[in-house]
Amino acid sequence: MSQAAETLDGWYSLHLLYAIDWPTLRLVPNEDRQEIVKEFQDFLEKLGSVREHHNGDHVLYNVTGQKADILLWVLRPEMQELNAIELALNKLRIADYLIPTYSYVSVIELSNYLAGKSDEDPYENPHVKARLYPELPEKEYICFYPMNKRRNETYNWYMLSMEERQKLMYDHGMIGRKYAGKIKQFITGSVGFDDYEWGVTLFSDDVLQFKKIVYEMRFDETTARYGEFGSFFIGHRLPEDSLEKFFSI
Amino acid sequence: MSQAAETLDGWYSLHLLYAIDWPTLRLVPNEDRQEIVKEFQDFLEKLGSVREHHNGDHVLYNVTGQKADILLWVLRPEMQELNAIELALNKLRIADYLIPTYSYVSVIELSNYLAGKSDEDPYENPHVKARLYPELPEKEYICFYPMNKRRNETYNWYMLSMEERQKLMYDHGMIGRKYAGKIKQFITGSVGFDDYEWGVTLFSDDVLQFKKIVYEMRFDETTARYGEFGSFFIGHRLPEDSLEKFFSI
Amino acid sequence: MSQAAETLDGWYSLHLLYAIDWPTLRLVPNEDRQEIVKEFQDFLEKLGSVREHHNGDHVLYNVTGQKADILLWVLRPEMQELNAIELALNKLRIADYLIPTYSYVSVIELSNYLAGKSDEDPYENPHVKARLYPELPEKEYICFYPMNKRRNETYNWYMLSMEERQKLMYDHGMIGRKYAGKIKQFITGSVGFDDYEWGVTLFSDDVLQFKKIVYEMRFDETTARYGEFGSFFIGHRLPEDSLEKFFSI
Amino acid sequence: MSQAAETLDGWYSLHLLYAIDWPTLRLVPNEDRQEIVKEFQDFLEKLGSVREHHNGDHVLYNVTGQKADILLWVLRPEMQELNAIELALNKLRIADYLIPTYSYVSVIELSNYLAGKSDEDPYENPHVKARLYPELPEKEYICFYPMNKRRNETYNWYMLSMEERQKLMYDHGMIGRKYAGKIKQFITGSVGFDDYEWGVTLFSDDVLQFKKIVYEMRFDETTARYGEFGSFFIGHRLPEDSLEKFFSI
Amino acid sequence: MSQAAETLDGWYSLHLLYAIDWPTLRLVPNEDRQEIVKEFQDFLEKLGSVREHHNGDHVLYNVTGQKADILLWVLRPEMQELNAIELALNKLRIADYLIPTYSYVSVIELSNYLAGKSDEDPYENPHVKARLYPELPEKEYICFYPMNKRRNETYNWYMLSMEERQKLMYDHGMIGRKYAGKIKQFITGSVGFDDYEWGVTLFSDDVLQFKKIVYEMRFDETTARYGEFGSFFIGHRLPEDSLEKFFSI
Repeated sequence: MSQAAETLDGWYSLHLLYAIDWPTLRLVPNEDRQEIVKEFQDFLEKLGSVREHHNGDHVLYNVTGQKADILLWVLRPEMQELNAIELALNKLRIADYLIPTYSYVSVIELSNYLAGKSDEDPYENPHVKARLYPELPEKEYICFYPMNKRRNETYNWYMLSMEERQKLMYDHGMIGRKYAGKIKQFITGSVGFDDYEWGVTLFSDDVLQFKKIVYEMRFDETTARYGEFGSFFIGHRLPEDSLEKFFSI
Repeated sequence: MSQAAETLDGWYSLHLLYAIDWPTLRLVPNEDRQEIVKEFQDFLEKLGSVREHHNGDHVLYNVTGQKADILLWVLRPEMQELNAIELALNKLRIADYLIPTYSYVSVIELSNYLAGKSDEDPYENPHVKARLYPELPEKEYICFYPMNKRRNETYNWYMLSMEERQKLMYDHGMIGRKYAGKIKQFITGSVGFDDYEWGVTLFSDDVLQFKKIVYEMRFDETTARYGEFGSFFIGHRLPEDSLEKFFSI
Repeated sequence: MSQAAETLDGWYSLHLLYAIDWPTLRLVPNEDRQEIVKEFQDFLEKLGSVREHHNGDHVLYNVTGQKADILLWVLRPEMQELNAIELALNKLRIADYLIPTYSYVSVIELSNYLAGKSDEDPYENPHVKARLYPELPEKEYICFYPMNKRRNETYNWYMLSMEERQKLMYDHGMIGRKYAGKIKQFITGSVGFDDYEWGVTLFSDDVLQFKKIVYEMRFDETTARYGEFGSFFIGHRLPEDSLEKFFSI
Repeated sequence: MSQAAETLDGWYSLHLLYAIDWPTLRLVPNEDRQEIVKEFQDFLEKLGSVREHHNGDHVLYNVTGQKADILLWVLRPEMQELNAIELALNKLRIADYLIPTYSYVSVIELSNYLAGKSDEDPYENPHVKARLYPELPEKEYICFYPMNKRRNETYNWYMLSMEERQKLMYDHGMIGRKYAGKIKQFITGSVGFDDYEWGVTLFSDDVLQFKKIVYEMRFDETTARYGEFGSFFIGHRLPEDSLEKFFSI
Repeated sequence: MSQAAETLDGWYSLHLLYAIDWPTLRLVPNEDRQEIVKEFQDFLEKLGSVREHHNGDHVLYNVTGQKADILLWVLRPEMQELNAIELALNKLRIADYLIPTYSYVSVIELSNYLAGKSDEDPYENPHVKARLYPELPEKEYICFYPMNKRRNETYNWYMLSMEERQKLMYDHGMIGRKYAGKIKQFITGSVGFDDYEWGVTLFSDDVLQFKKIVYEMRFDETTARYGEFGSFFIGHRLPEDSLEKFFSI
């Protein structure tokens, strides 16, 4: 039997980060720039129309610091829809002023470490479905980072027994639960899809909660011994009806 | 006797990844752009003409995320043919709008760890020939990543005995077999040719299978202890007759 | 009980580093350049107006060497104010001549390793408040660097007991105290906010003190075994009324 | 006595790798481009004139993949001649269309691990002279890569005794000998000159031999435990009289 | 008592490396280019005027290979003078054709590992003064590289006792002495100033001596176990009166 914990996989996920080329955008006459932004806004609105039929979701944030200016996170039932959305975005006029800085390809994932045994098809469980095909929350702040489980010489996550991993993940999960109500957390799996194994996307109205949970978890053995992190991206909400103001110079 | 497992080597391989410079491409008048794309399409068609005489193959995919826009994978009997193809591509008008982002030089390889002893010349074996000089499948999705076997202080693949490596590769291969029918896998060797030791190229109509196989293998000792990975590139098929639409703005 | 030391968190912090695009700036007619610099100066002055009500602070330095030309460090009560400031800066005309080179997102932090037990709300303690919501000093030189605590296989900070960490931090703090009066030190926490765990920002009128303290601390076990450093940025004070001269060509 | 093996040092060596800026080159009118290429060809011809008096040598290859387009390897009796050649190349009109991608500074080196003791001055030995001041072969393919000997915590090449290193190098050399006639190998030392300790430059008419030798050596303890590699560059011969065709668009 | 060896600190040091933008420089009319170079030459001459009063020094070299074209090393009594010099250089017309590639901020340092005990103020010792505030030699070649002492899990320089470090540094110094007369060596300390802990700058009329000393030292335990190196930059002298010729196209 495979040692791999079963995962449940939901919508495909694409995080797109762009810096804005402000010097070039400034050269665009005001009216023209408004049209460009309007086209982008219409694109986002159309993107959001799938929400009605619960066929995906997306959010838009303004990234703090120089790693990027905007972060667009899109979820869709099929990977190729993400390709189509990225292609459409590249063809918008706004794309002339967006410089790609980072992207992440993954899929909403529930790991089954803690699953009880049952005959039920988990994909029919309404709690599971709500997490695999989520409605994204409207929170003030976002935090996104990719991560691995380490495969060091002494401490190698993938050489632990299922029981050891289950115990570690249980303790790890207990910390997460303390932040219920304060933080909404989404795990996306990216083994075979992108350069890290998972992406973590957190939402909160209180940005300090991101620091608190990530710091507290760092002392948890799962993270202390086995966690390996990529870049952290923090952003503040960018409502679509504020885009005109955001882009006006 | 050398400790190196014998390898069988087939066609030379070049993975070429390019981002598209959409802002500059947008400046090109429509008709002109169509000619540029037509020239690219003719080039690809001519490239494909070797298929008849089974003298090579190629595929074209649209990469998901910002690592690249297109991935062209070309196979040929001689390395210098790959140089000639890359040179010809660089001289196409489309090349003015393609930004090189990554490439990989290798050769289709069958490792002989599991080979029985026989007097037969393996290069005359039709099963072997079909794998060394393959017809590439037409699948919805591609996954490409380069990898090494680790040479750490405690766990060093290249200091294991042939027997140990054979046993590890056998178990490793058993996982791969479970995905027969779901995934088509190609291994290319790049020791001495490029920065990693192997390239892995997978094809499937179901992109989730890439995640499943790579995740399951991560718990296999061969990978858990000895696998070291470069970037993962995921793409959706870009049929050559869809190029006009793909590039139209 | 969590192993994480309690932290007290004050103002949010954004370090912004920019190179100046001198060749392009030279092309700007003198009078025009003066207006551009004047606009930047007005922006900084307005930024500084929060000092009156003690709602934040900022400093500006000229970085030594090619890592950047200017370093602007801004503190504010809310993270989203930092987003707003960065956005406003990006829209200034001077931004056309500033090339982002590095940024750091964090929050002023006091770690509570050495805290005595008391019923007092530390956020009401005037000494604590003065450190969480500080007035930044006017010193000749600045030194900024981000850092981590190591999680190696043998020496893993996050697997030490609270008592061990307390002892190590006590010894570490004793070195710091020797530099009281010579160096003003600010620690900002960035776990979950940026790629390192902390930022260290030092001020002194004698730049050599930076070398002395960082060198002496390197022999302290906390740093020798567990310290991991990012880039070091050194700068000389750039008073806002010297900007015209600084930018004149 | 020093633990360092004596080395014999011959001609100074400079590997220069450039990508070609095809989009800009395409804008150059045909006739003009021919003049530019002619000037480059004349430069190379003049460069080659030292061969008569055996005062250096050079070769030119077309690199496979996107790491570079051309690789020029130059050998000269004095380091400052390499500076002069690079400077002259930078002033050619072709340089406007060459983007530097990698370079390597070193010196032809024979390590003396296997040297018998003798009173002979090795620099007077004709076999040694032929290797220190070599005539470069005209082979179809080139392979260049820089490398280090590892200084890990358990396995540290530079802490081995001279006897241990001699034994390891002997076994290593035995593999190399098997490829005599198939591969011409040049070792250049770069300790103190560039970022790795050695450069390895291989020539062969059969590109697959590069993979075979590097793969076989990887199982040799010298490489398995102590070898650390930079990037691998593979190229196909670019005869100087084919430059016009190579650059024609 | 602190475990840190006392250091004596002299002049502040700035290594500035630039690539020359030859394609753009070629577009400048001859006469204009001569003026630009003349302005640069005047700047360097003025820079050198401090030599009379022994208030600093500088040298200029032409770097071999593509890492940079020129290396300017400047020493001054105050760090802020280095800021002023870099700013003035950025405002020269030549700066439009110089692309910053690397810089290093440090301070001339004598480590006191081998110091005898005495009541003498070392800063009054003429031998010490000559080394802290040196006149830079006019040698054919320069070699510059930054380095660290390793803090690995088993071998951690900063966890050794003062006695162990003294012994190691003594042996290390003995190798250095063998090159007296062949190589002039300058150590600059950069802990807290830049990303490595020290910079090493060597001068010689025989470039091969750089390879010999660095190679021999690699077998010395101080380096073999504890040395960690950044990039190596090699250059040939660029006398200021040869600048016109150097820049002429």
